Amino acid sequence: MNIALLGFGVVGGGVYELCRKRTDLSLRRVLVRSDKPEIASIATRSFDDILSDPSIDTVVEVMGGIHPAKEYVCAALNAGKHVVTANKALIAACYDELIALARKNGVALRCTAAVGGGIPWLINLERVKRLDSLSQVGGIMNGTTNFIMDAMHAAPVSFADILKKAQELGYAEADPSADIDGDDIRRKLAISANIAFDTALSETEIPTFGIRTVTDGDIASFQRRGFVCKLIATALRCEDGVCAFVEPTLVSRQEPEAAVPANYNLITYTADAIGRQSFFGQGAGRFPTAANVVQDCLDVLGGKTAFYSVPSAAAKLCADAVAHPYYVRTAVMDPWLTSITADHWEGGVITSAVPVGQMLRWAKERLAADPTCFIAGIR
Amino acid sequence: MNIALLGFGVVGGGVYELCRKRTDLSLRRVLVRSDKPEIASIATRSFDDILSDPSIDTVVEVMGGIHPAKEYVCAALNAGKHVVTANKALIAACYDELIALARKNGVALRCTAAVGGGIPWLINLERVKRLDSLSQVGGIMNGTTNFIMDAMHAAPVSFADILKKAQELGYAEADPSADIDGDDIRRKLAISANIAFDTALSETEIPTFGIRTVTDGDIASFQRRGFVCKLIATALRCEDGVCAFVEPTLVSRQEPEAAVPANYNLITYTADAIGRQSFFGQGAGRFPTAANVVQDCLDVLGGKTAFYSVPSAAAKLCADAVAHPYYVRTAVMDPWLTSITADHWEGGVITSAVPVGQMLRWAKERLAADPTCFIAGIR
Repeated sequence: MNIALLGFGVVGGGVYELCRKRTDLSLRRVLVRSDKPEIASIATRSFDDILSDPSIDTVVEVMGGIHPAKEYVCAALNAGKHVVTANKALIAACYDELIALARKNGVALRCTAAVGGGIPWLINLERVKRLDSLSQVGGIMNGTTNFIMDAMHAAPVSFADILKKAQELGYAEADPSADIDGDDIRRKLAISANIAFDTALSETEIPTFGIRTVTDGDIASFQRRGFVCKLIATALRCEDGVCAFVEPTLVSRQEPEAAVPANYNLITYTADAIGRQSFFGQGAGRFPTAANVVQDCLDVLGGKTAFYSVPSAAAKLCADAVAHPYYVRTAVMDPWLTSITADHWEGGVITSAVPVGQMLRWAKERLAADPTCFIAGIR
Repeated sequence: MNIALLGFGVVGGGVYELCRKRTDLSLRRVLVRSDKPEIASIATRSFDDILSDPSIDTVVEVMGGIHPAKEYVCAALNAGKHVVTANKALIAACYDELIALARKNGVALRCTAAVGGGIPWLINLERVKRLDSLSQVGGIMNGTTNFIMDAMHAAPVSFADILKKAQELGYAEADPSADIDGDDIRRKLAISANIAFDTALSETEIPTFGIRTVTDGDIASFQRRGFVCKLIATALRCEDGVCAFVEPTLVSRQEPEAAVPANYNLITYTADAIGRQSFFGQGAGRFPTAANVVQDCLDVLGGKTAFYSVPSAAAKLCADAVAHPYYVRTAVMDPWLTSITADHWEGGVITSAVPVGQMLRWAKERLAADPTCFIAGIR
């Protein structure tokens, strides 16, 4: 297999290292934005060099972002080249369009590393779908937020202090919003749900609440009652479509999610025949992510031309199809919250079962009036 | 694919049900030992009916036991038929011989369901090996013992009482020895280690200590110190070979193994590029196990002819290459145990780091003199 690599950042460098050790994968060109002396002989700043080279059969896209990655991927597919990508923004936004293009051109489009970094998640989801009927996907799909929540349970520490530590360790970005507000995990959930259920949900329509406002007082209150709080993504098949949401979630200390340490992920599907299966591992990082990219190349090399799914007509997002109790901490009660309050913990109230969509809409509005408000679903 | 099924028990019935729903897998014959009215039209008591039928391209063996399963599998391979098996006794005992025979005949031999029931364990182990270098495999690989240990941590209960309950629920056999003495998990470890490290370890040489002698007092003592006790299998690549062992193990409450509930399994590998990855799910049961069998058929149908590994010359088992502290409870101290005692808990002593092989040899001998003796490695 003759590969051109688009991008030479953290993941691209890892792909380069892993390919160097192999005789079956030959890395012929690397598209770069600045000089890279260590790969001078194969680096180029022109995508046309790659597109017009008939010896290159596979393009590996690890640039990230939608543009120009999308234009490059489409051009490669149209030129009859296989594409392997780790780009979750691109896959979440354009999955059905790109799959159709790959199909039309008789080439493969694979994106295992787009969800779960080094975890063999999408490839096992694809495998289980061949035989079984999936009812649920989701889990702990963001390592940054799990690192923060895990640390806040290990010892009393403020969110601001532990976020700063995560940034120092390289687990959180300088602008941490995409992680702590739940956009990153929501994106991975959208890709997973669309593959699991053959749907075409848009990531932005999935109701989401992040962990930015959690306090050490909240955590102490949860721990006193045997709960652990994690940011969890959930998508379930329901009668009229898919119920999908992202929210801080209280799980019992005995649940597998409760014991996910540091920046690890635990991603789960449930299917009729095999029941629940979960995948634990590093959801990010240079070599784990690069390994899934190179594994995709090996699958293409082995003749794997099947696609992860065939998106059907857009399914309805039914966020109110599931209801459960919530922990809600807000500076000021309102009549609706009072009407559903069933219990009081130290800093917050416990509600009766509330439809998830309804609570997440309320919480989003409430954040405007009370920027310290925090909620957590109780599983 | 035209399939003949050998065996129509718990798993065989599940394979039959899953195949019935598909058009790509046609179940043509079923080898039975007694009349099965529901499959009268395809049942036979003669393996020759299957062997001599050229329309049958794949034999699925779910009889269990080594004889006559081995003779049937060898005959099928020699007749140019693919073989899919869930038979861990057969694979543990004859893996290299059967793989060589499959290779010679240009057919597939797949056995994903032989380890981990419905968990996609061996197939992911095979995948990671294509690219990465494995350093460790193992974990919670027996659901019966995990059910017992989980229940003993949830509420004070004697081993005898919870074993009886597990038998009533169908989680433990009438003769529970193979599960509680560790033979079943040891067998799964041998298969996994041999595939991971291209070795040919014999299951019986792996030092093993089961959970038969654990008491509610032991568990209370562990919990008081933040530990959870699980029966864990471990195989590590070491300088001179493979260090493999099975023993009750104390893990911190924060470890993923600590939160494996009921009869679930959590099986783990560690490799250079991707780090630690674990697989959680049902390690037994009709439909989970049957699903992995049928998935193997789909892989063969899709042209997957590769084998899980190529066993090399027998690797040395080095059980003393790893050392760690132990909890030891025995009615009578002896000079060796006294010489390594570093601490005292309620009912037992804590040792300094002891080579695993040495401790497991000592414990096995000690059981003859003190049948109540219990030990647990401290990770």
